[in-house]
Amino acid sequence: MRAAVMYGAGDVRVEDRPDPKIVQPGDAVVRTLAACVCGSDLWPYRSMPATDAGRPMGHEFLGVVEETGDEVAGLKAGDLVVAPFTYSDNTCDYCAKGLQISCRNGGRYGFDGVDGGQGEAVRVPLADGTLVRLPVSADSALLPSLLALSDVMTTGHHGAVTAKVGSGDAVLVVGDGAVGLCAVIAAKRLGAERIVLAGRHEARTALGREFGATDVVAESGEEGVARIRELTGGVDEVIEAVGTRQALDTALGAVLDGGTVSRLGVPQYDQGPIEFMRNITLTGGASPARAYVEQLLPDVLDGTIAPGRVFDQTFALDRTPDAYRAMAGRQVPKALLRP
Amino acid sequence: MRAAVMYGAGDVRVEDRPDPKIVQPGDAVVRTLAACVCGSDLWPYRSMPATDAGRPMGHEFLGVVEETGDEVAGLKAGDLVVAPFTYSDNTCDYCAKGLQISCRNGGRYGFDGVDGGQGEAVRVPLADGTLVRLPVSADSALLPSLLALSDVMTTGHHGAVTAKVGSGDAVLVVGDGAVGLCAVIAAKRLGAERIVLAGRHEARTALGREFGATDVVAESGEEGVARIRELTGGVDEVIEAVGTRQALDTALGAVLDGGTVSRLGVPQYDQGPIEFMRNITLTGGASPARAYVEQLLPDVLDGTIAPGRVFDQTFALDRTPDAYRAMAGRQVPKALLRP
Repeated sequence: MRAAVMYGAGDVRVEDRPDPKIVQPGDAVVRTLAACVCGSDLWPYRSMPATDAGRPMGHEFLGVVEETGDEVAGLKAGDLVVAPFTYSDNTCDYCAKGLQISCRNGGRYGFDGVDGGQGEAVRVPLADGTLVRLPVSADSALLPSLLALSDVMTTGHHGAVTAKVGSGDAVLVVGDGAVGLCAVIAAKRLGAERIVLAGRHEARTALGREFGATDVVAESGEEGVARIRELTGGVDEVIEAVGTRQALDTALGAVLDGGTVSRLGVPQYDQGPIEFMRNITLTGGASPARAYVEQLLPDVLDGTIAPGRVFDQTFALDRTPDAYRAMAGRQVPKALLRP
Repeated sequence: MRAAVMYGAGDVRVEDRPDPKIVQPGDAVVRTLAACVCGSDLWPYRSMPATDAGRPMGHEFLGVVEETGDEVAGLKAGDLVVAPFTYSDNTCDYCAKGLQISCRNGGRYGFDGVDGGQGEAVRVPLADGTLVRLPVSADSALLPSLLALSDVMTTGHHGAVTAKVGSGDAVLVVGDGAVGLCAVIAAKRLGAERIVLAGRHEARTALGREFGATDVVAESGEEGVARIRELTGGVDEVIEAVGTRQALDTALGAVLDGGTVSRLGVPQYDQGPIEFMRNITLTGGASPARAYVEQLLPDVLDGTIAPGRVFDQTFALDRTPDAYRAMAGRQVPKALLRP
């Protein structure tokens, strides 16, 4: 099969790799229909040391089950499924709490002999616990929004859930990338009254307004904080969807005392600020996407939310390197790949 | 009147100061019956640069209203009252949310011309919003436990509340000082099933067991974390009642993924760790003591909780310097002062 492999910063290649086969009795092989490039893929794209081994890339995909191991009970060949961005047994103590990202037996695509999602097929371990069947056909126009459940939408939702966004709240979303835009959808869905989107890319913030942002702040740093405070008097919750220290400082500057900052962007800093007198809660983290797929699925199916709109360009699988380049150069916020 | 003033590290003096008078129409003058030295007073006691001006000390006191300003409606001379450790109007937006520590008009004792609590009398600004009347007489045996509502007990409670300690939870309390011991009381009161107290002072941890600790861990650092994990498999919540980086590291090492660490100890470090993959929530901060006094008062009055037991030595006001010395030398966890 063809699949994307990263060999170092700026060096993504699509090459022939062995077709996945069932290895463990709980595995399923999924033939990929749609995949994508994640904002978090851009961190190694910018900084990964060169290596001969290469790392299969991608952790967001949707496809058709081709084959299942002997112990797989809930899936059969032909099922259309979406894969959360990590695999998990969905039965351990962490999974039972809805924290599948910390599954005792789970793992990441592209590591430990498991394929990445940016390829023609993937062996999915713990298939019963991981994959969620989708009640649509392979040519459904909803596929991009369903694919978004593998990561961006469930991640944005995690931000809103952990920030405890509630009815009538004023919420700041820092970052107009795909996760930030999905966080706007999620904040609106949970009842936020005021949603300020901090971002400077006009096409993206315009989409953010369609998703529910009531205000857009293009200024950054102290000027941005001043503007947000002027607009809102301070916000109840912040969803930080960038990962830089500046984004975190904007969050802390804009939030009211006693408020909550939920971090979704993979932190690109070692140490964070200490908030004490102001009683700011710092929460969030890597999303347990599996916990949220069924929660959000009905809203995608009935069109209440359309997170697939964050994909603004589609690339054939062999053009995956172009997709990385376009995302790294910020021409494209989120690239969809079609194997 | 006589009152304690700090002139630098290790230099606390009890001296004559002007008797407090009503300055603002919302003030009350309270004649102090009991006060105490706070663990947080020890940080300046260890590090404050020498100064000629001096700083009136103390922010925990209980006493009798002597005089009230023209606008004070809810209090009259003769009322026995407890003062939360900051003053607040109890009407602003933050106070309305129960975050009196961030009151828009509030402040701290010992600053801005307001007396400290370690003295014979205190002018209390915003008296209606701040002081809570106590339905006991001045010779009640409950005074120490009622005094604890000014800070230690309401602070320990804040840790348990912000950590969201709930029925059946496993909780770690880091630190066997007075706040840590009160956090044990609070965790038990909110239904924790397992309460591990990390501390090495046997007399204090013994009191912690009487307050509800089910386990005591005397080891610190990695050894302490290993022991706590061995005992509990990891805890749901941690109340960190020390303020050092090592205490925070113990908290993060012992807490389960998805768990919560509430910090009560004034942080003695500039930067904190970034937790992301494990979804740890960092919360807590300076307690809005005023919000909790009425909540906890019935339990003190009926003897359900007896936080006053943390005071293990009483000093006459003129011996305040000895009280600081004893607390700094760890002979006494919490000193009660009797003007």
